[in-house]
Amino acid sequence: MTLTAPSTYKALTEQEAIRLAQSLDVFASSATLQCEEIGDGNLNYVFRITDSATGHGLIIKQALPYAKVVGESWPLTLHRATIEANALKLHGSLAKGRVPEVYATDAALAVTVMEDLSQLTILRNGLIDGKHYPKLAEHIGSYLAHTLFHTSDFGLHPFEKKRLAAEFSNPELCKITEDLIFTDPFFDHDTNDFEEPLREAAQAIWDNEPLKFEVAKLKRSFLTEAEALLHGDLHTGSIFVDEDDTKVIDPEFAFYGPIGFDIGLFLANLIVQAITRSGEERELIVQDITQTWQVFEQQFSGLWESDGIETYKTTTGYREYAIEKIFHDAIGFAGCELIRRTIGLAHVRDLDDIADESTRIDRKRQTLKAGETLIQTRREYQSIKQLETAIKELSK
Amino acid sequence: MTLTAPSTYKALTEQEAIRLAQSLDVFASSATLQCEEIGDGNLNYVFRITDSATGHGLIIKQALPYAKVVGESWPLTLHRATIEANALKLHGSLAKGRVPEVYATDAALAVTVMEDLSQLTILRNGLIDGKHYPKLAEHIGSYLAHTLFHTSDFGLHPFEKKRLAAEFSNPELCKITEDLIFTDPFFDHDTNDFEEPLREAAQAIWDNEPLKFEVAKLKRSFLTEAEALLHGDLHTGSIFVDEDDTKVIDPEFAFYGPIGFDIGLFLANLIVQAITRSGEERELIVQDITQTWQVFEQQFSGLWESDGIETYKTTTGYREYAIEKIFHDAIGFAGCELIRRTIGLAHVRDLDDIADESTRIDRKRQTLKAGETLIQTRREYQSIKQLETAIKELSK
Repeated sequence: MTLTAPSTYKALTEQEAIRLAQSLDVFASSATLQCEEIGDGNLNYVFRITDSATGHGLIIKQALPYAKVVGESWPLTLHRATIEANALKLHGSLAKGRVPEVYATDAALAVTVMEDLSQLTILRNGLIDGKHYPKLAEHIGSYLAHTLFHTSDFGLHPFEKKRLAAEFSNPELCKITEDLIFTDPFFDHDTNDFEEPLREAAQAIWDNEPLKFEVAKLKRSFLTEAEALLHGDLHTGSIFVDEDDTKVIDPEFAFYGPIGFDIGLFLANLIVQAITRSGEERELIVQDITQTWQVFEQQFSGLWESDGIETYKTTTGYREYAIEKIFHDAIGFAGCELIRRTIGLAHVRDLDDIADESTRIDRKRQTLKAGETLIQTRREYQSIKQLETAIKELSK
Repeated sequence: MTLTAPSTYKALTEQEAIRLAQSLDVFASSATLQCEEIGDGNLNYVFRITDSATGHGLIIKQALPYAKVVGESWPLTLHRATIEANALKLHGSLAKGRVPEVYATDAALAVTVMEDLSQLTILRNGLIDGKHYPKLAEHIGSYLAHTLFHTSDFGLHPFEKKRLAAEFSNPELCKITEDLIFTDPFFDHDTNDFEEPLREAAQAIWDNEPLKFEVAKLKRSFLTEAEALLHGDLHTGSIFVDEDDTKVIDPEFAFYGPIGFDIGLFLANLIVQAITRSGEERELIVQDITQTWQVFEQQFSGLWESDGIETYKTTTGYREYAIEKIFHDAIGFAGCELIRRTIGLAHVRDLDDIADESTRIDRKRQTLKAGETLIQTRREYQSIKQLETAIKELSK
């Protein structure tokens, strides 16, 4: 499908979004279309266009040429819209049903027209409301296995892999991650944001040289290891769910990076939930963590057998080595995510919305502690069951 | 300088090479120019254009659209001429005096016009003739430190690093290395080429699962670790020398890869020399190996202090960790190079030109053994002095 659109960038109005939707072969020409802007306005416009008669709709997402965070505004490449649309299309072709369908794109307008997922809930919101999603672990484990295996050298010809690595070069958005996940929270940096009672814990992190040495290694991995085409920002706010369905959205941070990064970010956001829950509710989340890894490992191993193109794929120990590296990387990256979501620039509602101050500070201290532990002990875990035991202990 | 050249590719004749040289502001318009094609004709034309009166000259190197190896011919991207010219310019700006000056380039013709280095000798030829070059280790150690540090995340802003990584994406030439250094020699592959008395040693390599497991890890590093802009083919045939000067040529394999790869290839080609020499002559080469690493380590560390931009650069242990990784990678890559130069497709004259069959086979067996040992024990070396002792033992 092609869009009838101006050839230079301008931020769309709701009326222009409707006209843009009308130019596609989606709605009847007689349809009365309604438009609602449902984005948070910090990075993107998200217009939902609905046919009033049928209720049928679509999403027009437009990147804004700046990012707004805590009142500050800085320029941010519009190219991220192209990265996001291309990652949605590629990952969608590899992990069927796990990604919204893309109907049309326009690079100049930084616009992606895609499937409306309004019937689903943002996973983070559902989890904060105490929900549990029985298909989540299976769906995300499978999404991770398929998208990461098939874009890695284990499953993709090196010509195509290197073409994709160059196409998905994403310096500006990678820099955000480099700074906000791997650097600033580990130094007394002015982007950090935390409640005063956490200062002592933050200072302890800044003073912890062995911890920072491990984070330096993880950052180096993020900077240099072009293993697979990552989503790049796979937290629970990037996933739509209901009882039966799971869709991964917003891959604007997509780039070629270490496989464990996507896994680690997802697991970290579940660990935050484990920390804020108790009893059986916590147990369900811990089981999701275990099952996500198990599904990933099983399907990644299966693809290695069935679709692997690496000549060394049957060399004794190599598959186990590759998977163990992913496992240990994921645990380390999860630790970084836990720390940055607590004292870094970008927080999570799971923790910030805990009303009682004493409980909130306790949970945040626990999150920091869990992060430090996972980073420093990541290579000691020999199985997901060992990690599960540790997470249960850390989230108690 | 710009070239007056046709806008589509055609292989140059000597007359056309002269006309191309005349179009540059290098020779007097009255000069009588002579042309000699001095390439081996397998991958490139190399025309030397000389002013008969002054003896002053330049080189016109033109990539051919195919590679010829052992009678076979296969298509090979002309883009490698652009990669080579851009790598020469960038590395030349970082390691002053260590790279020939580039006067002009033409992407369509796949031509690079550069400094004539005919007064120098190809290092491999000089070494085979028993020569020793007193400045070699200092010059190459320094070249490696400067080119690799300043193109890595330790010394270069991530925007510029990622721009260069995409610009130097070099899938076709990387694939040659992936196959010929990391894969084919470790399997009974039809590109392999060795004398029959070596079959048992070759078979032992193909059957050595622990060795192949280590090579799989080294190949993975080559495929995924975008640490710095490498030369990519730094053997002793890619270096011009005399008593006082050293110039690195032919970076057509340049790409973003693991820092240890350039170092390992260079050291491996010196190790071959150590194996073919004896007594004091061997000692000189072993000292070159040690000194190259020492100069690299010292200057890389110095640049880390003076020019490092990584926030973690003063974190306890990080610099030592980064340098140790490079050291162990280099030893492993050296091992792969030793094996592929003995039983793989592309041999070295250092070994093949040994006239006496029994001596030649012995030296080749020793080279294979050295390669296996270095690959399998690479992480055990804690210092260059330990490696020096091992190399002395392996080359005896």
